[in-house]
Amino acid sequence: MPTLILLRHGQSQWNLEDKFTGWVDVDLTSEGEAQARKGGELIGQEGLRIDRCYTSVLTRAIRTSWLALAAAKQAYVPEVKDWRLNERHYGGLTGLNKTETAAKHGEEQVKVWRRSYDVPPPPMEAGSEWDFSKDRRYEGVELPATESLKTTLDRVQPYWDAEIAPKLAAGETLLVAAHGNSLRAIVKLLFGLSDEGIMGVEIPTGNPLVIELDAQLKPVSARYLDQARAQPLPQV
Amino acid sequence: MPTLILLRHGQSQWNLEDKFTGWVDVDLTSEGEAQARKGGELIGQEGLRIDRCYTSVLTRAIRTSWLALAAAKQAYVPEVKDWRLNERHYGGLTGLNKTETAAKHGEEQVKVWRRSYDVPPPPMEAGSEWDFSKDRRYEGVELPATESLKTTLDRVQPYWDAEIAPKLAAGETLLVAAHGNSLRAIVKLLFGLSDEGIMGVEIPTGNPLVIELDAQLKPVSARYLDQARAQPLPQV
Repeated sequence: MPTLILLRHGQSQWNLEDKFTGWVDVDLTSEGEAQARKGGELIGQEGLRIDRCYTSVLTRAIRTSWLALAAAKQAYVPEVKDWRLNERHYGGLTGLNKTETAAKHGEEQVKVWRRSYDVPPPPMEAGSEWDFSKDRRYEGVELPATESLKTTLDRVQPYWDAEIAPKLAAGETLLVAAHGNSLRAIVKLLFGLSDEGIMGVEIPTGNPLVIELDAQLKPVSARYLDQARAQPLPQV
Repeated sequence: MPTLILLRHGQSQWNLEDKFTGWVDVDLTSEGEAQARKGGELIGQEGLRIDRCYTSVLTRAIRTSWLALAAAKQAYVPEVKDWRLNERHYGGLTGLNKTETAAKHGEEQVKVWRRSYDVPPPPMEAGSEWDFSKDRRYEGVELPATESLKTTLDRVQPYWDAEIAPKLAAGETLLVAAHGNSLRAIVKLLFGLSDEGIMGVEIPTGNPLVIELDAQLKPVSARYLDQARAQPLPQV
């Protein structure tokens, strides 16, 4: 039975400082490392046998996958890293503290950027401290200057269709260790949620979300392995 | 310029207990973790930009690659894990303490197994505590029952030729995080050492060995990044 395990990376240094992170390559805190290990232990205890692991090119998601695979005693699983599983690019908000941003742009405007499906923040300016155009991991990639959840989904979907869905269709069990918004994009695709519907879905950090699928890759069950830290899930 | 970085995994629990480990999936000690991090820091300080990383399917080598890549701030590098980079399979000696083995088989015989190029230890018996035939990471692999350095090289070479050499020929910088004997096999291939010559080469743990190659993949220079812990190298 095709099985998908979604794992959102644990706490990063900028989560702690309440900054818009997006594509900035901030590492996990020790709390975030512990969350990743806990997620992996739960996967191991559940007896899930992972066939393949997908993650982004951002250290906090990659290290979450590593810590989880090691804790599940499945370090040997093949792994693929791809920028299309990166967090949403926060454009001109990148690196700003959320309180500062509210002071600068107004509380209401910040809510719109954070909670609307298709309104991107202002673009990141070329030459910004956080400009990723010289970063070799994005060689050959047409970089976004900002993203909404919609445009995040627009780059997740081709990767999903070309790389991930075929492996599920072959019956594999996959771990996808990624970010709040790239995982939301996947949940929207899988459950056929509306633009409004997906905005109500919040995936907790370090809590493996196990989705069993039928042969058409339609979800037949979905559950968090840490029930004490579960959040509401879409209906299957 | 094609560049190969060989990194032998750091101390494992069974190194500490002086047991023949081979394919048993023993993890690193915290000392071994520190050695891997140190190796990665040296790679980063040297300004080496890794294009791709190869490792075995054994946790101690995989985690060495992870800790080193993270310490070099290059966690995003693509990684490939393959059993053909595994440590030499120690056959019937697997799991035995080296002193016990000498008591059982005689000091001289143990020396022959450890130091000769082509004499394998007795085969591992089917149904042994360490039988790997049920381990899913070896599905579809024709498992050896024991290996000499020669037969280790016999399975490293096809992988080298098919997967690693073409990436070097394309000018890439590769990290190979593996084991004492799979790395020796690579050194023998690269430097064209005799069967006796390779037995004198001992690669220290956690000390990156950087080999620069010409377009024909002939070594033009070789050096350890931690000079204080270097061992003699073959002439280039």
